[in-house]
Amino acid sequence: MPDATLPTTYPTANDVADALDALRSSTPLVQSLTNLVSANFVTNVLLAAGASNAHIDNVHEAAGFAAIASGVLVNLGTPDDGTAAAFTLAAESATASGTPWVLDPVGVGGLPWRTELAAGLLTQRPTAIRGNASEIIALAGLGNFGRGVDSSSESEGALPAAVALLQFAQVVSASGAIDYIVGRGESGTVGVRVLGGSPLLTKVTATGCALGGLAAAYLAVTPSSLLGLTAAHTHVAVASELAQRNSSGPGSFAVAFLDALASITPEDIRAQARIERLDL
Amino acid sequence: MPDATLPTTYPTANDVADALDALRSSTPLVQSLTNLVSANFVTNVLLAAGASNAHIDNVHEAAGFAAIASGVLVNLGTPDDGTAAAFTLAAESATASGTPWVLDPVGVGGLPWRTELAAGLLTQRPTAIRGNASEIIALAGLGNFGRGVDSSSESEGALPAAVALLQFAQVVSASGAIDYIVGRGESGTVGVRVLGGSPLLTKVTATGCALGGLAAAYLAVTPSSLLGLTAAHTHVAVASELAQRNSSGPGSFAVAFLDALASITPEDIRAQARIERLDL
Amino acid sequence: MPDATLPTTYPTANDVADALDALRSSTPLVQSLTNLVSANFVTNVLLAAGASNAHIDNVHEAAGFAAIASGVLVNLGTPDDGTAAAFTLAAESATASGTPWVLDPVGVGGLPWRTELAAGLLTQRPTAIRGNASEIIALAGLGNFGRGVDSSSESEGALPAAVALLQFAQVVSASGAIDYIVGRGESGTVGVRVLGGSPLLTKVTATGCALGGLAAAYLAVTPSSLLGLTAAHTHVAVASELAQRNSSGPGSFAVAFLDALASITPEDIRAQARIERLDL
Repeated sequence: MPDATLPTTYPTANDVADALDALRSSTPLVQSLTNLVSANFVTNVLLAAGASNAHIDNVHEAAGFAAIASGVLVNLGTPDDGTAAAFTLAAESATASGTPWVLDPVGVGGLPWRTELAAGLLTQRPTAIRGNASEIIALAGLGNFGRGVDSSSESEGALPAAVALLQFAQVVSASGAIDYIVGRGESGTVGVRVLGGSPLLTKVTATGCALGGLAAAYLAVTPSSLLGLTAAHTHVAVASELAQRNSSGPGSFAVAFLDALASITPEDIRAQARIERLDL
Repeated sequence: MPDATLPTTYPTANDVADALDALRSSTPLVQSLTNLVSANFVTNVLLAAGASNAHIDNVHEAAGFAAIASGVLVNLGTPDDGTAAAFTLAAESATASGTPWVLDPVGVGGLPWRTELAAGLLTQRPTAIRGNASEIIALAGLGNFGRGVDSSSESEGALPAAVALLQFAQVVSASGAIDYIVGRGESGTVGVRVLGGSPLLTKVTATGCALGGLAAAYLAVTPSSLLGLTAAHTHVAVASELAQRNSSGPGSFAVAFLDALASITPEDIRAQARIERLDL
Repeated sequence: MPDATLPTTYPTANDVADALDALRSSTPLVQSLTNLVSANFVTNVLLAAGASNAHIDNVHEAAGFAAIASGVLVNLGTPDDGTAAAFTLAAESATASGTPWVLDPVGVGGLPWRTELAAGLLTQRPTAIRGNASEIIALAGLGNFGRGVDSSSESEGALPAAVALLQFAQVVSASGAIDYIVGRGESGTVGVRVLGGSPLLTKVTATGCALGGLAAAYLAVTPSSLLGLTAAHTHVAVASELAQRNSSGPGSFAVAFLDALASITPEDIRAQARIERLDL
C-alpha cells in the first residue's frame, strides 16, 4: 500500500499504477537517439511497455522530429560526429518545443570527448537525467560542485551528485541495486528510492538505456517529472522481478523481461512496487 | 487449397510453397542496407528462413556488392549522409545489374529529408516497394497522383497508392492486419491480399524491415515479382501465427517467430496460407 | 581428460577451465569496435560469459580507451570512413599499450575496400586473428604467401593460411565445423583443433563476431595467446552444444546460448571440451 501520509509531491505506487494506465492508453511516441548496441532493445522495451518509438538521429531530421515527438531520449553510448550534432539539435528543439527529454550520459567521466559533449547538453536543460552512479557523479563533477561527492560507485553515493544536477534538470536518477531519484518539489528537493529489481539486469546490455527510453515515454504522460522518472524505474523493477522468476540465465531473462513489461498490470504495480521516500 | 481457377499471374499457396523450396535450396544472398534498429533482426530472419545476408552499406562497397548479390534491401529507417549515398549507389548498381531490389520507405511522409531521398530512389526503379499503409500513401503522394488516396492508415486504404506506385516498381505491398500486394500482369494490374499473421508483429520492432529483407530473398528465386513479394508476406504470416501459439508476450514471440520461420515446411504453407485474389 | 603428455605450450581442457575461472574472477573489460549487426549480441555474449564490454568506435575516443581496456576487438563487419579510422587508431594504441587485440576480418577477400583496410591493420600486429576459413585464406593472400593455400572454404583448408598469418599475429584461428587454432611455440608453430559446437551457430548472426569479442576477453586473462584464443573457441563450442539441446530453432538457440555461456562451469569445460593437438 502506498503511504497516504506522503505529500503528493512524492510519487506512490498508486501514482505509478495510474501512470502505467496513462502510458498504455496514450501510447506516447518516443524519439530515440541511442547507441547501436541498444537501439533494438530500447525500441522493443518501449513497444512491450505500451509506448512506441522512432529512432531519428540524423542531423537533417533530429530537430524537426523532437518538436513533434512525445518525448526524446538522448543517449551518449556510441556517439560519432554526426550523431553528436544530432543530439544537440534534438535537445535544443525539445527544450524549445516543450518536449520532455532525457539525457543518459553513458560513459561520461572516463571518456573526455563525450564528457564535453554532455556538458554542452546539460546547458540545454534536459527534463531528466538518468545514469548509473559513476556517470551521475562524473556529470555533476563537470560543474565543480564537488561537495563531498562520493567516489564510490554505489547508487546511494551518487545522491549528492544527483541533487547537484537538479541545477540543470527537473529530475535526476542514479541506477543501481537500489535506484535513487530526486526532483525539485514546492519546498525544496524531494526524492524517492525504488527497491527491488533483479541482478540479471546487469547481465543484459541496454537495460539501462531502455530505462532511459521508458523515462522519456512516462514523462510525456505524467503530471510531474518526478513521477514520470519514478514510474519508469518502477515498471522496470517490477517487470525484472517477474522475469527473473521465469528465466534461467541472461538470455531467457531478456526475453522474459520484454514479456513482463507487457503483461504487468496497474494492479501488479500497486501490489509489488517498493517506492520509499528519501529524507533529503 | 489454392484456387485452380486463378490465372497463373495470381500467386497461389502452391506457388509460395514452391518458392520456399527454392529459397532453401538456393540460399540467396541478400545485401541489406537497413537501419541500426533492425540490422540484427533482419539478418536473423533471413538466416532462419533459409537465405543468407550481408549488411554492406558503405559508399565504397555498396555498389560493387549490389552487382553480385542475389537481392538488395534498401531500408530508410535510420539514414545519415553516408548511408543515404550508399542507398543510391546500391540502387543504381542493382538496377544496372538486374539484381532485384526492395525499397522500404520507413518514415516517409512525416520526415522531409528522407522523403526526398525516397523520391530519388524511386527514379532508380525498385523491383518491389514494401511499406505500411501510411508510408505507401505518402510515397505515392510524391508524384502527385493524389486520386482519392485515402488518408486512413488501414492497409486497404493504401491500395490506390500502391497501384499508383506501379509506375515505378514491378510490385508494391502495403502491410497491415491484412497485407495488400499489387503487380503488373499481362492484361493490367493484378493483386492479392494475404490474410492471417499476428498482432504481436506490431509489438516487436523490425518485423516489417525483416519482411522487406525476405522479399529481396524471394525475388531472387521466383519467376515473377508478384510471387516473390507474396511469398515473403505469406511466409511471415504463417510463421507469425505459429509463433503466437508458442509465446506469452512480445519477447517470447520474437524468439518463436525465428524458430517458426525455420521450421515451417512447404506443406505448412499449402495448408495454412490465406492468399486471396483482388478484383482491381 | 586432457592429455598430460602434451607440452605446456598446447592448451588443454584443464587450462581452459582455469581460464574460465580467471575470466569470471577478473571480469576483463573489452573495447569492441564491431558492426551494427553484431554490436548487441557481442555485448550480451561478453556479459553472459563473465566479461564486460564497452563499444567505443569513434575517432575521438577509440585510441584513448584502447590504452586502458583489458582487450580490444576490431571487427570489419560494417565499416564506414569514421569507424575505419577508429579501427586503425584503436589498433595502434592497443599495440603501443600492450593491450591484446583481435582482428576479425569479416568479408575480407570479396570486398576490395575493407581488404585494403585489413592489410593496413595487419601491419599493426594484432595479438590474434579470428575469421572463417575463406576470410583467413583471403587475408593471408594479401601478402602473397600463396604456398598451397587451399581455395576450399573448409576450415582445415585454411590451416596453411592461418600459419602464414603468424607472421603478423601471435595466434590465428579459422572457424568452421571444426575450429583450427595456431600459434608460435618455443620451437616452432603449434596448434590445436577444437571439435564440437553446433550447426545452429551458423543460423544465428554474429556468433562469429561474438567469438572474436570473447577472444579479446580471454587474451586479457590467460598466460599465452594460444590458450586465450583456444579458451574462447572452447567456451563457445561447449555452450553451443548445451544450447542446442535446449532449443527448437535458431531463435531459441540464441537465447539458450547466452544462458549456457553463463551457466557453464569449469567442471563442464573439463568434462566436455574436445581439444586436439595438431601435428604441424
